Formats: sequence, structure tokens, C-alpha cells
Amino acid sequence: MSERPASTPTAPTAPREIDFWFDFASNYSYLSVMRIEQAAAEAGVPVRWQPFLLGPVFERLGWSGPPFVVQKEKGAYVKRDMERLCARYGLPWTWPSTFPRRALLPMRVAAFAAGEPWIGAWCREIMQMNFAEDREIDTPEAVHEALNRLGLPAGEIVAAALSDEHRSKLRTQTATAIERGIFGAPTFFVGDEMFWGNDRLEDVIAWAAGRTSA
Amino acid sequence: MSERPASTPTAPTAPREIDFWFDFASNYSYLSVMRIEQAAAEAGVPVRWQPFLLGPVFERLGWSGPPFVVQKEKGAYVKRDMERLCARYGLPWTWPSTFPRRALLPMRVAAFAAGEPWIGAWCREIMQMNFAEDREIDTPEAVHEALNRLGLPAGEIVAAALSDEHRSKLRTQTATAIERGIFGAPTFFVGDEMFWGNDRLEDVIAWAAGRTSA
Repeated sequence: MSERPASTPTAPTAPREIDFWFDFASNYSYLSVMRIEQAAAEAGVPVRWQPFLLGPVFERLGWSGPPFVVQKEKGAYVKRDMERLCARYGLPWTWPSTFPRRALLPMRVAAFAAGEPWIGAWCREIMQMNFAEDREIDTPEAVHEALNRLGLPAGEIVAAALSDEHRSKLRTQTATAIERGIFGAPTFFVGDEMFWGNDRLEDVIAWAAGRTSA
Repeated sequence: MSERPASTPTAPTAPREIDFWFDFASNYSYLSVMRIEQAAAEAGVPVRWQPFLLGPVFERLGWSGPPFVVQKEKGAYVKRDMERLCARYGLPWTWPSTFPRRALLPMRVAAFAAGEPWIGAWCREIMQMNFAEDREIDTPEAVHEALNRLGLPAGEIVAAALSDEHRSKLRTQTATAIERGIFGAPTFFVGDEMFWGNDRLEDVIAWAAGRTSA
């Protein structure tokens, strides 16, 4: 590698994996959860799914809740922004009647299953329930239904996710998110290179694939 | 026009003008100020330059300053984000040693000259001083220098901008920005359709040009 001044961004030369940090309660995470697997696969870039809870992150920043809820002006805008973006991506969209929606149980399942081949499909099922069907997702019924729809053994998986061995994973994930300087979701990393927001999904994929020269 | 459900975004069918709200102190405004005139011209879309002061907007939202300054995590990220974006757009970039930089005098000139054919060139000169050359911009010297560089009568223009007739324009602009629900910069409107952030520049141009079907 040739030397460059410190301020010049450099992209890796070979495809590297993307760490994808998300929360099921987050509307902009919805957009990336629905899109990332296909987009990354097309670029030959692997994705590591990194569920974490935004709530403790916002608390640490001194916010009483999501910025869209705390600030009315921003909230009104975000609703319109989501309509336009979902129309562009061809995604179904309903502003949830409860926002942000509690998602502890499905998040625990995601933390348990982060390395499984069905993690992407699982996340899309839950996001679909929250942001397309406006349904509660933090219930055993909803979680079982979504797992069953994927042909997975719901009882076993939920029991494992709630077991002593695995139930602390989500807390560890959230602590790691804070350590890494995450302040919102979705957030992406390629190594230490951080990208924030669904608007940066295409950028982080290009970066991981080594297609960004600057 | 055919009827559509209320939630489906619709774009105008003929090119319409973009109201472009910006502040010389805002780093993401820098990106749009440097790009909008050419990009809009290529799409045949007129731009109305709408300078306003972000400070009173942030105060009204209960912030003590720009979110990037108030929140250290976000601040560190934004510096990196700006490096990457400027590299992509081919724009020079230096994080200003004073941020946000005072810009009252050049903003008054912008408010005075908003309808002039040289408004775009004027804004680019000032932004270049702030974000490429890391120079103070809220001085008579800087403002005269920038106007002279454009071949404009600096003394006359500054006197007019500070005259009783025109000096209140910037305050009126800022009040209008608050009325319209603006919470950051840059912000764009096509009619009542609002777009926030440099990331939406391409979107708002497509919308104004009638190229967005959804």
C-alpha cells in the first residue's frame, strides 16, 4: 500500500465484511434490514448481524427517547421521509401505532441467532410485522408465529434465547455498541470505518467491496 | 390528476422551483451550496436561495448548539462523514478551527442578494473560505474580498445589505424557516414537500423535475 495523508479516506482493497447494527424498534433500521442481505450478496460482501438496544444508547446521550419523538418538527418530517423512501424501495409501510415499539423478546432471539443462516429472514419477518402490519412484536405469540412461518422450531429457539447461556447476549451487544461510539441505528462498520443511517447502505457496501477509491 | 390514497407520495408533473434553505455555518449546507446550482440547472429546475440562521432554530428546539457539537459521538462521526463525502464530490475540505463559525454579515449579504444572478457564486465563495480555507467570514474584509473576487461593487452591496430597508430580511427569513417547520440545514422544499439534508439533494431535484413517480 502506498502512503497517503491521514485525512484521505482509503477503502480496503478486498471485500470485507460489514457489521450491521440495528434495532427492531427503529424505522430507519427497517429500511436496511429489508435491503441489506440482497444488496450485500450482489456485491459479494458478507454481513454480520449485530442487534442492539437503542434505548440505553439514547439514555446515555441524555435523550428521553428517539429524536423523532422528542422533537415534533423532526417527527412530522420523518413520517413523510419514510413514505417516500418505502415508495422508492418498493417496501410496504405503515407508521406503527406504538412507536418506538417494545421488541425485547425478538431482539433476544436475534442476538441468539445472529450467526445462523436464517438471521436475515428472521429480522425481515419481525420488521414486516412492526412496520408493514403494525402488530405488536414483543409477545411470545408474535415470535412463535414468525419462527413457524420460517419453518423453524419456535419452542426450542425461544427457550435457548432465554436460557442463562444466551439471554445476556443482547446486553453485551448493547454495551459493545456504546463502546464503539454508536449513537443511532442503523449503523454499519467495515473494520473501524463507521457509516450511520440507511442513506449510507450503498456507500458501506461499496466500501467493503473495495469499490470506493477515495 | 387521478386520485390517490393520502399516504402515496405524488410528485409534480412539470418542473417546479426548489426553495433551498441554508446557513453558511452549517457543514452539510456547504455540500449542497457547492453542488445545487449545477445539478438543478442540468435538470432544468430553478432554485430560490433562502438563507436563514440555524442558531435560533436550534435554540427553539432546546439545543445549546449544533447536534455535532453537543454530542461528542456524533461529532467524531460527522468529521469522518464529511471527509468521505467531499472526496466523493471532489470538493476541498478542512474542518473549520472555529465551529460553528459566525456568519452574520455574509448571511445578511445573502439575504439581500437572494434574487440576484450572482447569489450562487457568492455563496460558494463564502463557503469556500469557511470550509476549504478555514478563514473567518464574519468580517468586512472577508466579505469585501469575496465580493471583489466576483467583480461586484463590494462597498455598495454591503451598505445596501446593512441598510434599514434590507437588514431585517435575515430575521424575517429565520422566522419563516421556523414557521415552515425547519429543524436543520440544508432543507429543501418543492411547494410544501420537504426534504432535509444534503443526502436528499438528488431526490428533491428529481421531485421538482417531475421524475419521481412515487
